[in-house]
Amino acid sequence: MFNRKPLHECVPELVAAARGDKHATLVVTNGKLVNVVSGEILPGMSIGVYGSRIAYVGKDVSHMIGPETKVVDAAGRYMAPGLLDGHCHIESTQLTVTEFSRAVLPLGTTGGFFDAHEIANVCGLSGIRHMLEEARQTPLAAYLQAASCVPSTGPDFETTGASLGPKDVAEAYAWGQDVIALGEVMNFPGVVYGDDKMIGEIQETLKAGRFVDGHFTWAADDWRLPVYAAAGVTGDHECVTADDVIERVRLGMYAKMRRGSAWHDVAQTIKAHTESGIDTRRMMLVTDDRSSESLRDEGHMDFVVRHAISQGVKPVTAFQMATINTAERFGLQRDIGAIVPGNYADIILLDGNLADVNVVMTIAAGVVVAENGRMTVELAPYAYPEEMLQSVRLEPSVAADWFAIKAPVASGEAGVRAIEVRENHVETHEIHVKVPVENGQIALDPASGLCKIAVLERHHRTGNRSVGLVANIRFRKPAAIAMTVAHDSHNVLVIGSSDELMAEAANAVIRMQGGVAVMSEEGAAEFPLRIAGLMSTEPFETVAEQSASVSRALAAAGCDLNYAFMTLSLLALVVIPTLRISDKGLVRISAAGIELVPLFLEETEQV
Amino acid sequence: MFNRKPLHECVPELVAAARGDKHATLVVTNGKLVNVVSGEILPGMSIGVYGSRIAYVGKDVSHMIGPETKVVDAAGRYMAPGLLDGHCHIESTQLTVTEFSRAVLPLGTTGGFFDAHEIANVCGLSGIRHMLEEARQTPLAAYLQAASCVPSTGPDFETTGASLGPKDVAEAYAWGQDVIALGEVMNFPGVVYGDDKMIGEIQETLKAGRFVDGHFTWAADDWRLPVYAAAGVTGDHECVTADDVIERVRLGMYAKMRRGSAWHDVAQTIKAHTESGIDTRRMMLVTDDRSSESLRDEGHMDFVVRHAISQGVKPVTAFQMATINTAERFGLQRDIGAIVPGNYADIILLDGNLADVNVVMTIAAGVVVAENGRMTVELAPYAYPEEMLQSVRLEPSVAADWFAIKAPVASGEAGVRAIEVRENHVETHEIHVKVPVENGQIALDPASGLCKIAVLERHHRTGNRSVGLVANIRFRKPAAIAMTVAHDSHNVLVIGSSDELMAEAANAVIRMQGGVAVMSEEGAAEFPLRIAGLMSTEPFETVAEQSASVSRALAAAGCDLNYAFMTLSLLALVVIPTLRISDKGLVRISAAGIELVPLFLEETEQV
Repeated sequence: MFNRKPLHECVPELVAAARGDKHATLVVTNGKLVNVVSGEILPGMSIGVYGSRIAYVGKDVSHMIGPETKVVDAAGRYMAPGLLDGHCHIESTQLTVTEFSRAVLPLGTTGGFFDAHEIANVCGLSGIRHMLEEARQTPLAAYLQAASCVPSTGPDFETTGASLGPKDVAEAYAWGQDVIALGEVMNFPGVVYGDDKMIGEIQETLKAGRFVDGHFTWAADDWRLPVYAAAGVTGDHECVTADDVIERVRLGMYAKMRRGSAWHDVAQTIKAHTESGIDTRRMMLVTDDRSSESLRDEGHMDFVVRHAISQGVKPVTAFQMATINTAERFGLQRDIGAIVPGNYADIILLDGNLADVNVVMTIAAGVVVAENGRMTVELAPYAYPEEMLQSVRLEPSVAADWFAIKAPVASGEAGVRAIEVRENHVETHEIHVKVPVENGQIALDPASGLCKIAVLERHHRTGNRSVGLVANIRFRKPAAIAMTVAHDSHNVLVIGSSDELMAEAANAVIRMQGGVAVMSEEGAAEFPLRIAGLMSTEPFETVAEQSASVSRALAAAGCDLNYAFMTLSLLALVVIPTLRISDKGLVRISAAGIELVPLFLEETEQV
Repeated sequence: MFNRKPLHECVPELVAAARGDKHATLVVTNGKLVNVVSGEILPGMSIGVYGSRIAYVGKDVSHMIGPETKVVDAAGRYMAPGLLDGHCHIESTQLTVTEFSRAVLPLGTTGGFFDAHEIANVCGLSGIRHMLEEARQTPLAAYLQAASCVPSTGPDFETTGASLGPKDVAEAYAWGQDVIALGEVMNFPGVVYGDDKMIGEIQETLKAGRFVDGHFTWAADDWRLPVYAAAGVTGDHECVTADDVIERVRLGMYAKMRRGSAWHDVAQTIKAHTESGIDTRRMMLVTDDRSSESLRDEGHMDFVVRHAISQGVKPVTAFQMATINTAERFGLQRDIGAIVPGNYADIILLDGNLADVNVVMTIAAGVVVAENGRMTVELAPYAYPEEMLQSVRLEPSVAADWFAIKAPVASGEAGVRAIEVRENHVETHEIHVKVPVENGQIALDPASGLCKIAVLERHHRTGNRSVGLVANIRFRKPAAIAMTVAHDSHNVLVIGSSDELMAEAANAVIRMQGGVAVMSEEGAAEFPLRIAGLMSTEPFETVAEQSASVSRALAAAGCDLNYAFMTLSLLALVVIPTLRISDKGLVRISAAGIELVPLFLEETEQV
């Protein structure tokens, strides 16, 4: 049904259909064409489709219509190319690829660039392969990326379920042209300082004619950004300021501006255009990570484009940032990103003003797949193999004393470094505070607002575990959350204001073989994630509701951070500034590089 | 010396150089960077180069400088990416690739996309191969195209020295990634109406991941332009109006705006931007055909960019149209078209105002190759094989009576169709006139301004010849010109107001084994072109002077058309409207297609 054939195979039939010697399979008539190539809105246009591709765009397609042609009357509505997400981790939605496509197709997303590095950290190359095979069955123009940083750093800093290197990424490119790029190269210090594995993966990527996506979190004016660019990295979504965007574009990179559920960067980054006026051709809109709840409640790329327009971007320019710019970034402008002859027929109809981004129909690969917010075709589920459903290699016997923290003094207080969470931001701060010590152990003062945060290794039964402190979780009463979604190594992450509840929550996710559990006197929530401990086997609607139940349980206990679970699940991601935690301990990333740091402060660091 | 290595091979050394662990081979300091990616001019910038590629772009490259580093102080001058010619036939300059590069490198052109379909029409695939091998020895980032239309139409309409098909173009792509595209597909009616050879060549091109360049001369609003686009054609330089540009861009094509020696299209086509305001990312500046004289007297891409700016284009936008847009059109943005880390170090320094496009230094593949208008490196000549120097297969025994035209009446007058030349335009008009008849033959009245025009087949000794009439040559006295440069079949084209001088001129070019000869009572000029009858074995300076001597001899006889030889040499190009001549007779191209038409008018056509 969604047979996306290479253009060279389609040329004879497209030309025949375009000149009227074969009837179109679908035509869309009388719409206002959002022409992202010329940057114009053209009224009174029609589109002729043959099979999966567009055969004709013009004022009149009547010569292409036969008795078997499906005719859609756009009735003056806008016709735009389907939206593309230029950087997205599907695993962050907790949905399978099939359910993700069910969620986003009605919202107008018809394609995306998916870095399946979450599942790769748990299941290795085979995890990516399964997601690719699943993606190929959906209506999406789905392109997978070969995960570059599995682990995100190295075995000194974290323990993952698998490890990939240059040979593995080369193998992934051999699966097909839809493995299009090297996923975000998060070990940017490794690239800059010539790490063999990182350089090797990049070389294999360029040799295969693929693209290298980046992830650089040092400052925009750091002298090492051009060094990173010299390695062949040509795209980066770790932009949080307008200067981050400007400096990347100046160096020839595509700057991806992100609006995830909990990373609200666009309002700042878009100023590179709205205030500084740089050329927009290498500016892209992306989601990076969006939860299933936010897909349901806010939207996907439709939401991001609408948000960009609300910041003062001309609508057609905002559409370019989610269509043609994205396609060009990956060399796919002859397949996707514009309504032009030859390209895939990925078309959306929009009602009202273009600035509303109100998608009322989605056509993918020449088939009407959604109308008025609902799918109009059924998608068969994909069967993941049993071993991917059994990925939590821990016994449900976690005890409260696993979370005790021995202090360097017997009583009094001790200076510690803590992770400070920032709402709606991906980066954290490192703060230095004094905490009370009783019986040689840290005794948290509920009034301090500090919680404990722990990571339990779950892939190889190493028994590794670490415990630290975290600020701004906002629990007002004894509560805990445990999760097997803990970027990127996806060990069991536990956060709480009670050692007992932390143990309970951890045991709950172990018993579920993956998922999220919230425990508090206000009630519990459980959200099972069986596939690699990351994704649910349930439909989108169920997952969104379970995800919302986690938010409600957290909020009831006081943790009312916007998309709190999303923010918390990244506290183990050691390649994002500033302070994080892994199964190896506290990890700090700064201009000096990545380093393990002790929980207790040195003399010179005292508060 | 000009070792352009693939990026993947260079990554380790580029990163090491960028971070300061290897010394740069070249740095350019303290310039105003013309950043064609962000669309900005950035003062106080420096560039670090290692080998053939850029390793660093930033405010400070002092960490990269060692004792062996060549340091160029830009002293506040502009630093721009080397200019790219997005569509050019080197044969039209009558220069070898080596001499062409000597001519254009001092002018700031560092790369181009060369459709060697002239030599292919004479020598077949081997002609393209030799030009490719020669190009690889020059400092240019030279990309060849596989000629699509050899012959431009088919054996019914013209006789060529060779014929290429789908298998041949596929073979050419196997020579290397520098065979980048299918050359202009001039048989656009063939594409639209499903000609197997044309469709086959396009399919081989797309399958090989290459690009298809077009040549469509029906009107901008012809319903068949989208049909042509559906075949996968994504670039076209046959734009003569702003609408031609706009309609192509709307269909996803790159619109190439041409300023050849004698095709002055930019002043019209640029209005797509300056008046209609469409997005400029798919607008390119190209030369198509420039004579060696015009390279010497006006310039190359520097001249075209300067001209575009003079029409009201912002300088950085005009530079984009000759750098990054061109690179993106061919998927080469990671190699050429911008001064960014990783790309080839193809850099020009410009003095004065940017709008002056005054190139004072050219760096190609990391080497300073020209300064103040002169080459600073020597280039070795390329040896063409003997058989390519013996390509005119005719005896020098052409007689005046070969040019007699038998009339359908014995005396009185007859109605004929004639080719009308348009100065500075590639297209001709068809005009209908009455001519006197004496003794059963057309007897030209010198006052009518008509000349005879003839084509003698020179490849296969077929003996084919045809004679017609042409207006607006402007000879005021008995004169003739003969040439083996006669696009695209390159038979011997003879134009004159005297049958005797026509025979003399034809015999002169046959004796030279290729070239141009002008004969008149005001004096003669001979311009030998030994390589395939198209290109000279002499240096640029000699060729420009010989070319100028042809212009002077033509002007002395009254033919003062701007770059007259260039215009005349296209009168045999049967794929450009409206009326042309080949060895098969008069050929007309119109909305109805391509057809042979008789010299004498039908009853219904009478004047």
